[in-house]
Amino acid sequence: MQSYNFSAGPAVMPSEVLAQIQADLAQSQKGHMSILEISHRSLTFDKIVDQAKDRLRELMNLPQDYEVLFVQGGGSLQFEMVPLNFANQKHQIAVLDSGNFAHKAAQAAQAEGVSAKIVASSRDEKYRYLPQLPADFSAPAYDYLHITTNNTIEGTCYHQSNLPQTTGPLVADMSSNILAEPYDVRNFDLIFAGAQKNLGPAGVTVVIVKKSWLAQQNVTKVGPMMRYQSYLDKNSMYNTPPVFNIYALNLVLGWVQDQGGVPAMYAANQKKAQLLYDYLDQSDFYHPLVTGADRSLTNVVFSTGNDQLDQTIAQQAQEYGLYNLAGHRSVGGFRASLYNAQPLAAVTALIDYLDKAQKEHQNER
Amino acid sequence: MQSYNFSAGPAVMPSEVLAQIQADLAQSQKGHMSILEISHRSLTFDKIVDQAKDRLRELMNLPQDYEVLFVQGGGSLQFEMVPLNFANQKHQIAVLDSGNFAHKAAQAAQAEGVSAKIVASSRDEKYRYLPQLPADFSAPAYDYLHITTNNTIEGTCYHQSNLPQTTGPLVADMSSNILAEPYDVRNFDLIFAGAQKNLGPAGVTVVIVKKSWLAQQNVTKVGPMMRYQSYLDKNSMYNTPPVFNIYALNLVLGWVQDQGGVPAMYAANQKKAQLLYDYLDQSDFYHPLVTGADRSLTNVVFSTGNDQLDQTIAQQAQEYGLYNLAGHRSVGGFRASLYNAQPLAAVTALIDYLDKAQKEHQNER
Repeated sequence: MQSYNFSAGPAVMPSEVLAQIQADLAQSQKGHMSILEISHRSLTFDKIVDQAKDRLRELMNLPQDYEVLFVQGGGSLQFEMVPLNFANQKHQIAVLDSGNFAHKAAQAAQAEGVSAKIVASSRDEKYRYLPQLPADFSAPAYDYLHITTNNTIEGTCYHQSNLPQTTGPLVADMSSNILAEPYDVRNFDLIFAGAQKNLGPAGVTVVIVKKSWLAQQNVTKVGPMMRYQSYLDKNSMYNTPPVFNIYALNLVLGWVQDQGGVPAMYAANQKKAQLLYDYLDQSDFYHPLVTGADRSLTNVVFSTGNDQLDQTIAQQAQEYGLYNLAGHRSVGGFRASLYNAQPLAAVTALIDYLDKAQKEHQNER
Repeated sequence: MQSYNFSAGPAVMPSEVLAQIQADLAQSQKGHMSILEISHRSLTFDKIVDQAKDRLRELMNLPQDYEVLFVQGGGSLQFEMVPLNFANQKHQIAVLDSGNFAHKAAQAAQAEGVSAKIVASSRDEKYRYLPQLPADFSAPAYDYLHITTNNTIEGTCYHQSNLPQTTGPLVADMSSNILAEPYDVRNFDLIFAGAQKNLGPAGVTVVIVKKSWLAQQNVTKVGPMMRYQSYLDKNSMYNTPPVFNIYALNLVLGWVQDQGGVPAMYAANQKKAQLLYDYLDQSDFYHPLVTGADRSLTNVVFSTGNDQLDQTIAQQAQEYGLYNLAGHRSVGGFRASLYNAQPLAAVTALIDYLDKAQKEHQNER
């Protein structure tokens, strides 16, 4: 039976990439050094790092003033690194509180002694919609504005078309929809993304930083590993980087190129999401939790309205090879993550199953 | 031709572990979810984390008051995390400057605004021997003493038998000889080790912390990802950990157990190192750069005395399947890293080659 993994991250990877990793490891059984054993100072790894940077640069159409860095620690460490590097003039940042991860970013800055002001929030409404920047938002009062483009848990998204407009620096946590839909990088001063959703296995984080903004900073009392400048100066090899993870990331980036880049990913993701949202919109049994332009393409959240029943149906889905459909505990219901590597067939299989489950549980709602 | 990898890290891994990783990935080609795609919230991964902790606990004979944490960022991030968490009473730490990495640890603490006092150093002598704690060392003046047990670059080592004796807390960077020789963990208050030498692929760092010492700390203005308490509270899953890297680490720990644990590793490492040191000691062409009790078992540094010739011989070694024999640029000469996964056959092959090279280059020295 074909199985599908709807996990929000770590998540499904392209089968072609998994096959390549396996083939490369098999080579190492023949007396070659495996990717797990090569030095980060080797020519082989130098090429991997440079290729990954070049591929990302091309895929995201990065202007010259932007550089790609590879950091460890996931998005959560970025919640701490960004304020340490950039909140050093006003010592105050603005946060659009659109979900759990934006909230955590604000808390992390506060924990470091930086004032993180939540300028708009939908927290009281369980983040079911996107908060908008207030009309009187004053960018100069803050070192930057922090947003989460795609809210993995809540299934909402600031797309390029509804991006908050600020006259000051904009920092985006793009962990769950980088390369899934087009963004104009010139709108941002720093973008970061943990790899484990659209870019590869967990363990490496992509940071895209506007060099001229970084050059303006006066960072004090921060160690070298927490300074972006160290990564910029040393081509992300200030210390030993996670070699395998960057290698796998590079393969995923190559796969995205092979598929036709971000436009192709976007078209496929729209198709997948549309299919599922259309089904949910017409259903009298399931209902989507997010409506309108705020909807995420990568994380679709829905429910029958009965939490216990949702859990049962998500659990039983495993018998049909459909895994990790339970919503995050803070939201409940179902969550289907439709990242780049998720095939359309996963969505049709899901809809077939949801139909079956409806028939079985029609009267239990 | 059988090849051997003498890299100082990332380094050779046990062939049995590489075969297991390959077999596990092959399973995923049959419709199973691969280790690269599973959620860190899954039961499968929970078991991996707990097994890795239990194995390390058993291998190092950890007392109850010690906990194992898995962190990203390598030893270099530990150079910053340790002061942030523990240098909060005297705001001053002591460092035994025995090599490049001890020096970097001192610099990282200084960069954070912590006073890092170098209480003894062999830097002026190119770190060819181990500095000893001065007789008038006053532990109470410092929050802790930082040492590097094994100096990867310089080939020296504070073994259990010549460990610095302090009445205050002792922090050890054990990156290059953890599980390679026995240490009594009760001598330490915190131990850390980047995985990429003796524990697996780069991308995860083991931290062993004395809980009662951590409980005494009052950490302020530090974000959650830089606090050990966050990792302790959440079983190292405060955020998404590097799933694959911890999985591979767990396999390596299982392999060490299968081989007979640290006593067996120690015996094998002594045999390998002895063979090479004996050869170098009797040679009139090569000479070891470190003498006596300070010698490392895991990193053997030596030279012909002619830097250019050393480079030529290290380079030509590749034709015989012997890789990464060049010493670190700060030391020059040769470095043969003999970590746990390095077979004895690698050492005999190296000695055979060194003999050949001597005959070829006898008159060029």
